[in-house]
Amino acid sequence: MSEFRKNPVSGNWVIVAPERNLRPHDFAQRKKFQNLGSPETCPFCAGNENLTPPEVFALRPSHSPANTPGWEIRVVPNKFPILDKKEELIKGKTLFFERISGFGFHEVIIETPEHFKTVTRMSLDEVCKIFFTYLERIKHIKTDERIKYITIFKNHGEEAGASISHSHSQLMALPIIPPDKVQEMKNLRNYYTVRGKCLLCEIIKEELKKDKRIVEKNEKFVAIAPYASKFPYEVWIIPINHQSDFYEIKEGDIKSLAEIYRSILRKIETALDNPCFNMILHMRPFAKDGQEYFHWYIQVLPHLTRLAGLEWGSNIFVNITPPEKAAEILRRTQWRE
Amino acid sequence: MSEFRKNPVSGNWVIVAPERNLRPHDFAQRKKFQNLGSPETCPFCAGNENLTPPEVFALRPSHSPANTPGWEIRVVPNKFPILDKKEELIKGKTLFFERISGFGFHEVIIETPEHFKTVTRMSLDEVCKIFFTYLERIKHIKTDERIKYITIFKNHGEEAGASISHSHSQLMALPIIPPDKVQEMKNLRNYYTVRGKCLLCEIIKEELKKDKRIVEKNEKFVAIAPYASKFPYEVWIIPINHQSDFYEIKEGDIKSLAEIYRSILRKIETALDNPCFNMILHMRPFAKDGQEYFHWYIQVLPHLTRLAGLEWGSNIFVNITPPEKAAEILRRTQWRE
Repeated sequence: MSEFRKNPVSGNWVIVAPERNLRPHDFAQRKKFQNLGSPETCPFCAGNENLTPPEVFALRPSHSPANTPGWEIRVVPNKFPILDKKEELIKGKTLFFERISGFGFHEVIIETPEHFKTVTRMSLDEVCKIFFTYLERIKHIKTDERIKYITIFKNHGEEAGASISHSHSQLMALPIIPPDKVQEMKNLRNYYTVRGKCLLCEIIKEELKKDKRIVEKNEKFVAIAPYASKFPYEVWIIPINHQSDFYEIKEGDIKSLAEIYRSILRKIETALDNPCFNMILHMRPFAKDGQEYFHWYIQVLPHLTRLAGLEWGSNIFVNITPPEKAAEILRRTQWRE
Repeated sequence: MSEFRKNPVSGNWVIVAPERNLRPHDFAQRKKFQNLGSPETCPFCAGNENLTPPEVFALRPSHSPANTPGWEIRVVPNKFPILDKKEELIKGKTLFFERISGFGFHEVIIETPEHFKTVTRMSLDEVCKIFFTYLERIKHIKTDERIKYITIFKNHGEEAGASISHSHSQLMALPIIPPDKVQEMKNLRNYYTVRGKCLLCEIIKEELKKDKRIVEKNEKFVAIAPYASKFPYEVWIIPINHQSDFYEIKEGDIKSLAEIYRSILRKIETALDNPCFNMILHMRPFAKDGQEYFHWYIQVLPHLTRLAGLEWGSNIFVNITPPEKAAEILRRTQWRE
């Protein structure tokens, strides 16, 4: 029978309803990832640098001029930005209505010059460079004191909100801490106040001991199908040792992260027949506190089922695949191209 | 330029990004509502009563036996229930993980015996009977003291999570108050504590005065495109006079509600080319307090755009259609079949 499970990090409930579960390849109502567009017209392909705003960062040979081919990773402002760093930060409030001008950063990290190369097909070195680029951009942007939160995410495929198939991620730097993050910080702080320990550190220990929801583990990171996953086959990648700020990751640990990240995406692509997914890098808000109790993590959300009135009306998600089952299937999935 | 707007009811932020706005008929990436299936095999059609679990309520002539044709509205337990009223209510908690057994009610309100009749094509009397049925079911179910919250919603079309096209809505009665509702109650209570008035009562007055986001109004109800709409063309239908519990609606007011509800759905169908949508009836949780400050409402959410990493990662929704624009377009939309 189904059961309610509470996510101790967000405080939200999900209903795990295994009677409705499908075999991994039967989530057929959802569109697979499709690579649309072509290298000739794709604005993210090498040679088409003039189709994007000028780059703000790139990994390219030192002799190679900006906005020309030769780069490995390229960061550009979003051509249709949701937020604009040139906008003045203005806050307004009436009795009922509060507004803030659309100030912020909205950048696109073009992860490869090659149109058809997904993260799953990259070399480890190439994946490392993606995370290295995230680090560089965060370190740069966080010097702007108006920025309260940075979110980095990847929309893979149409169902995940991508309009361009060429592998990329996005960075948005916001002048507010999202209320959900405020709540998360509160939950983690409460746990820390009572138990004197970081909740995610404790959960990792418990999960490793039980070994029911572990998908993969290496020396530095663990990938878990969380107890109260909102989505079928949701996976969290978490540093094993406590670390509150992603941007403080040691250079030596980036390789372990790239390894487990690529491996999880490979498992999802293989086991679930190349679904659309979102990746979200959850970081500590730029606040004074939280170093002891916030623990950064990466969330991977495959899009296999549809949301309906229960989710929209109450924010209680129905997950038809028990995380224990998802972990079991992903654990034994071998990458095949 | 874009702006952040805060929803004073939920406390969540949205980003209104009008540069990305589309004309109403250009939201083309989304599937339209399609009536799939056929009256021969549809479990909700008259004559197929044996394809559903036995009815728990029906509007039918007094001489007509249960589970036979002749009904106007029929309520049956969901055949694939997410929650089960026969399940024992058991709560469990470890240091990290909290669970509750899948106890609850999950019912389907079959709104018409006719396969192809949508709410937009019903007579006013037929629409009234839908709301009357909601009332009856709520009054019946709320006598179970284990139930803390009832949500009634409608999934219209595949993109809204419907697996059956025949017009129906669903009722889920939960043993918990959803955390989002707890937060909403808190926000409304805070306003009431400071101002001594119900926030929604005050907002309605202000919106009627400004007349920028009003879509429609009758003697008893007003339909608004809310200031911080999450979705393009989101509409809230709100009783003008304070009422905390939907089930206390006066019988005489049901007609006004049916009128404005059908009209809003007609406008959405016409202006937006028959999109999929969710309807959610937001009710006061079954708690001691809140009569003074909770104000029930109906939310209509058309599905026109896709969610992406920002929404999933931070719960900040990007809405490309300013509510003022949505209100203007819906206001002048005339129903045409």
